[in-house]
Amino acid sequence: MALNDSLSPPLQVSQWFNTPEPLTLERLRGRVVVMHTFQMLCPGCVSHGVPQALRVHGLFPRDEVAVIGLHTVFEHHAVTGPAALRVFLHEYRIPFPVGIDQADTASPVPLTMQAYGLQGTPSVVVFDPAGRVRLSHFGQIDDLQLGAVIGQLLAEARPQPSLEGAPRPAGVAGGSPCADGACGVDK
Amino acid sequence: MALNDSLSPPLQVSQWFNTPEPLTLERLRGRVVVMHTFQMLCPGCVSHGVPQALRVHGLFPRDEVAVIGLHTVFEHHAVTGPAALRVFLHEYRIPFPVGIDQADTASPVPLTMQAYGLQGTPSVVVFDPAGRVRLSHFGQIDDLQLGAVIGQLLAEARPQPSLEGAPRPAGVAGGSPCADGACGVDK
Amino acid sequence: MALNDSLSPPLQVSQWFNTPEPLTLERLRGRVVVMHTFQMLCPGCVSHGVPQALRVHGLFPRDEVAVIGLHTVFEHHAVTGPAALRVFLHEYRIPFPVGIDQADTASPVPLTMQAYGLQGTPSVVVFDPAGRVRLSHFGQIDDLQLGAVIGQLLAEARPQPSLEGAPRPAGVAGGSPCADGACGVDK
Amino acid sequence: MALNDSLSPPLQVSQWFNTPEPLTLERLRGRVVVMHTFQMLCPGCVSHGVPQALRVHGLFPRDEVAVIGLHTVFEHHAVTGPAALRVFLHEYRIPFPVGIDQADTASPVPLTMQAYGLQGTPSVVVFDPAGRVRLSHFGQIDDLQLGAVIGQLLAEARPQPSLEGAPRPAGVAGGSPCADGACGVDK
Repeated sequence: MALNDSLSPPLQVSQWFNTPEPLTLERLRGRVVVMHTFQMLCPGCVSHGVPQALRVHGLFPRDEVAVIGLHTVFEHHAVTGPAALRVFLHEYRIPFPVGIDQADTASPVPLTMQAYGLQGTPSVVVFDPAGRVRLSHFGQIDDLQLGAVIGQLLAEARPQPSLEGAPRPAGVAGGSPCADGACGVDK
Repeated sequence: MALNDSLSPPLQVSQWFNTPEPLTLERLRGRVVVMHTFQMLCPGCVSHGVPQALRVHGLFPRDEVAVIGLHTVFEHHAVTGPAALRVFLHEYRIPFPVGIDQADTASPVPLTMQAYGLQGTPSVVVFDPAGRVRLSHFGQIDDLQLGAVIGQLLAEARPQPSLEGAPRPAGVAGGSPCADGACGVDK
Repeated sequence: MALNDSLSPPLQVSQWFNTPEPLTLERLRGRVVVMHTFQMLCPGCVSHGVPQALRVHGLFPRDEVAVIGLHTVFEHHAVTGPAALRVFLHEYRIPFPVGIDQADTASPVPLTMQAYGLQGTPSVVVFDPAGRVRLSHFGQIDDLQLGAVIGQLLAEARPQPSLEGAPRPAGVAGGSPCADGACGVDK
Repeated sequence: MALNDSLSPPLQVSQWFNTPEPLTLERLRGRVVVMHTFQMLCPGCVSHGVPQALRVHGLFPRDEVAVIGLHTVFEHHAVTGPAALRVFLHEYRIPFPVGIDQADTASPVPLTMQAYGLQGTPSVVVFDPAGRVRLSHFGQIDDLQLGAVIGQLLAEARPQPSLEGAPRPAGVAGGSPCADGACGVDK
């Protein structure tokens, strides 16, 4: 549909990591997509954005929520090329697919970043299962807020929202009172 | 409806703080309700549960998400009575309503805690706008996961989910590159 | 010596916990003494002061650095008495000796707190091995700064400062590169 | 003196940043020197070592404690050269002098790192004012422990240790009870 295309421009990526074949938004349809855009030498990306993307990747079922990274280099291009990014992804143990935003010959800002009107890094763009942009946020965003957006989009996608659809509570061992951050009732 | 009543037993509260009149689940219908149950001398409640409840209270619109506290004392009753709790709420600057779970004469575990089958503190119970329990979690839960549950329930409640329904991205000033945890594109 | 007595007034304690017999500063001579003064319902004490005191207690050799707590109640006396403090010490697993500062019949501020001119909680008072006050700090103090004061006093006390006197570096396993927060050279 | 030379090999640095002229240990004599060795793509260096070095730099008087960085590249040389490091130092706002450890033509491990027998990054090496190595630690080290070592070396250097020598307690405003992490006595 033309509307969706205008809302969600295609990802223009010159190189992909951590995926056997290039990704497209079309191939991710049916899932909520959390796209974390970053630069490898941006302090806020390294301290906040990357760990948050890893948490999202670790929490949600992969067939419901896809996490991808986009390396949107708009400064310091010379020292943050593909070889440097490859090392970064290795050292930070990033397991999800990461693409390099296609450089523009006429601007320091790469093409996907331009198409989405992103203001800088870190930014997070969240797509619903139909492929529409539902959140585009520049700067740090709280886990509570990002989680709420993801939860909302997951719920919309389910015809029959159910308890089972909720993320599974992490098991907390009961046992002795007040251990591991919780106080259990003795039994 | 009988079903709902059985799923969500009434709150049995001996005393309320931070509310002009006693709360009931019925009065909170139409909103997602996040009930944080705690004990004032439970370390995990103080370090994790209470700050998380304050973050939820601060993030979501009050007419969509209601945060309440429930002091479920099942140990050390003698030193965590109403006078001590009042001081705790004051010192920790807790602004949302907090009830004291009604003591049981036959058990150290108070009545609401029994009715909900809570295993200890901290626990979080999330009700949908219809008043049904949708999450009951003992122990620490991540912000990302709790946010997802709240977002899911908010989405279910809206006949026409819309972009506007998403939490507003916190404004991040652009301006100079790489300040305040983000790198902005120069313009 | 009169001078010392004026600098370091005796601890006036109505009750001790976690020690088989009452402590005095005289009995602690020869060691650096880090006295953490707190109130059990003071948020900054619980989030910062108590964990810091536990870290000091865990790091330094016990025969060189003694950590003690002093419960200096100047507000909310009714709900922070000995029975409540006992529960607090149990729940927060505080292993070092803690005394209750002797209440004054004429002032809400207890006697040791008055004698030391402490402004509030948390405060930390550090004594050198001769029993003299060398640091008295109201409010949160960084670990780096508190560590420097302790290190200075330890060094003064040793006629022949030596490498061995330095705290032992925590062992960090080498092995594989970039695991557990460090990158090791492959061998 | 031969002894010192053997204990503290000269820094072999191919390029310095943030200093008008090359540094030597001799020029830093009279001060405690905290040398933070790191690699710009080592996660533990970025999350722990660099922020700690910045705290040390910010806390102690510059004429008593000198903080320097040493970029000890032993892996990923191609993407962590001088141009990349320059960007890193700029983006992370590192104000203290940083040298690039001189590459070895015969080993991936650079020369100063070899001479000091460092096992990896991050490592911290602390010199006393006479220029002797007094701590060499691989991996993350707590602020409390690093502070103690610095305090010890500062105390050794002062003929007349005095209260004034202790780091100044950060001022904490009294005023209203229980604000900004501390509870003040009302006056």
